Amino acid sequence: MSDRKPTANGVSAAAERVAPHVTRTPLLPLDWRGVRLWVKAECLQQGGSFKLRGATNRLLLLGEDARRRGVVAFSSGNHALGVAIAARRLGIPATIVMPSDAPAVKRDATLAAGAAIVGYDRATESREEIGARLAAEKGATLVPSFDDVDVIEGQGSAGVEIGAQLGRAPDKLLVPCGGGGLSAGIALALPDTEIVTVEPEGWDDMARSLEAGRPVPVREPAPPTRCDALQTKLVSPLTLDALRASGARGVWVSEQEIEAAMAFAARHLRLVAEPGGAVALAALLAGKAGDVGENTVVVISGGNVDPLLYARILETHAAAR
Amino acid sequence: MSDRKPTANGVSAAAERVAPHVTRTPLLPLDWRGVRLWVKAECLQQGGSFKLRGATNRLLLLGEDARRRGVVAFSSGNHALGVAIAARRLGIPATIVMPSDAPAVKRDATLAAGAAIVGYDRATESREEIGARLAAEKGATLVPSFDDVDVIEGQGSAGVEIGAQLGRAPDKLLVPCGGGGLSAGIALALPDTEIVTVEPEGWDDMARSLEAGRPVPVREPAPPTRCDALQTKLVSPLTLDALRASGARGVWVSEQEIEAAMAFAARHLRLVAEPGGAVALAALLAGKAGDVGENTVVVISGGNVDPLLYARILETHAAAR
Repeated sequence: MSDRKPTANGVSAAAERVAPHVTRTPLLPLDWRGVRLWVKAECLQQGGSFKLRGATNRLLLLGEDARRRGVVAFSSGNHALGVAIAARRLGIPATIVMPSDAPAVKRDATLAAGAAIVGYDRATESREEIGARLAAEKGATLVPSFDDVDVIEGQGSAGVEIGAQLGRAPDKLLVPCGGGGLSAGIALALPDTEIVTVEPEGWDDMARSLEAGRPVPVREPAPPTRCDALQTKLVSPLTLDALRASGARGVWVSEQEIEAAMAFAARHLRLVAEPGGAVALAALLAGKAGDVGENTVVVISGGNVDPLLYARILETHAAAR
Repeated sequence: MSDRKPTANGVSAAAERVAPHVTRTPLLPLDWRGVRLWVKAECLQQGGSFKLRGATNRLLLLGEDARRRGVVAFSSGNHALGVAIAARRLGIPATIVMPSDAPAVKRDATLAAGAAIVGYDRATESREEIGARLAAEKGATLVPSFDDVDVIEGQGSAGVEIGAQLGRAPDKLLVPCGGGGLSAGIALALPDTEIVTVEPEGWDDMARSLEAGRPVPVREPAPPTRCDALQTKLVSPLTLDALRASGARGVWVSEQEIEAAMAFAARHLRLVAEPGGAVALAALLAGKAGDVGENTVVVISGGNVDPLLYARILETHAAAR
């Protein structure tokens, strides 16, 4: 481990590095209350979330020896899938430590991408310990989901694309936030943009950490949430510092607002958003992100949702506009 | 009316003309049985279908006088919405003749785009007569949904984008087909590509017309179908001739195959496809389009589906992969 911090230059270099390996996801127009906003549809990324970006950047920077010994990651799903796809493409063996209650849609896709899965119990076991043990046993490299310079810089490639697609820096950008890898990377890529991180109710540790100026853990017991991708209990100094430096602030949305946003995305954007991927859109629709204008971007960060859960959420909200 | 036919040059010119007004929809990778295919996600077009392309091209070519007198279109929904959005953007009054059983999602969006709607009964009234009467009364221009050179050439802009995004002409392209405007336009844009038009079971008049070498109507009574966007009973010589010249052939898919494709699109592509928009994907998944390879493109042409119907289809297919 070095003391290196993620930087804007690092993000630029990562964006060039990963470009041949990731989808340049579209920036789609959304006419909303008389204003044309923009949606970065990162749910259309390969593997269904932005996570391929950071994983690809991290793995491309591994030497030949490290590649041969393989990689280990712990993740509820999207990071697992990103690492699995990147690893398969580069011919690197991958083992994923995944909670036994991870959505089947993510587990199945990770297996289909050729990775090995080691399950654990979210309530009683430590994924960090299991991951560290596996890494030690095999000499494999642990690929963290957000607390890593190369991963953060890789996620920032989404921000580089947004700037290029919009032809300028957005005035404001709303982004789903778990550990903060995506939002920190984007904040570095777009230093003149007002960043608003969005979290599920009761899981707004980034919002509270930004206010406090230091990592503040989630208040226990944290309420249940459908946002399996955003259940991070403590952010990293790496992500927090990048977001603080950009003047970011955080807001939270309710489960009901998230479900409504998923239905809105299907109906008005023809996009499948998973709960955690829809929180920034939910903040927009619920008016929780303050003023928005022509130059606002909303990130939908993922679209891996259990099909039955998704169908039921859409059915519940079918009458709403 | 002139005897002008749609041409490859006309498609090129249309593609340049409409580019500032339409979304360059993404060409997304799809790994399918060990092969990387490509999906043209035209459901992400503004208004939720490719129809904005042809409507925009047609309306941009109207003179000042004609623009002032307005436009009339008849459509079950997607063409209506395309015309309504294009008209609003260009400041042209639009009236849409729409069947009373059109999906509410399409009707509401058309109204939201600022068009007037005149309803009719699909079983007992002729939309052509109503449209012609309205056009005569107001001196408005009738904008046909597919039997029109400018409309066909405008739809072909999707094919121009596909060639540019893929960096070459596809070997094979599967495309949903109603009246044939989109498929004919793409065939003109990509003359070296094998075009396969896909229709719902019992509505395969393009397939049979291509075999017969002349327009052959749908066999009555045509079975019920969820593909409200593809219920065309007779293709146009304009679309048929362009497709015949390219050596296109047609296949059909069942309602069950279409629903399975909609569920597949949500799960594996994170795209909302309407029934008519999913038929080409259905043909791929059901193995009805013959050999496919690295250089195959599947078009998803629209994503405007009734939210409750959509939820129920996804629920039914939630267990399937």
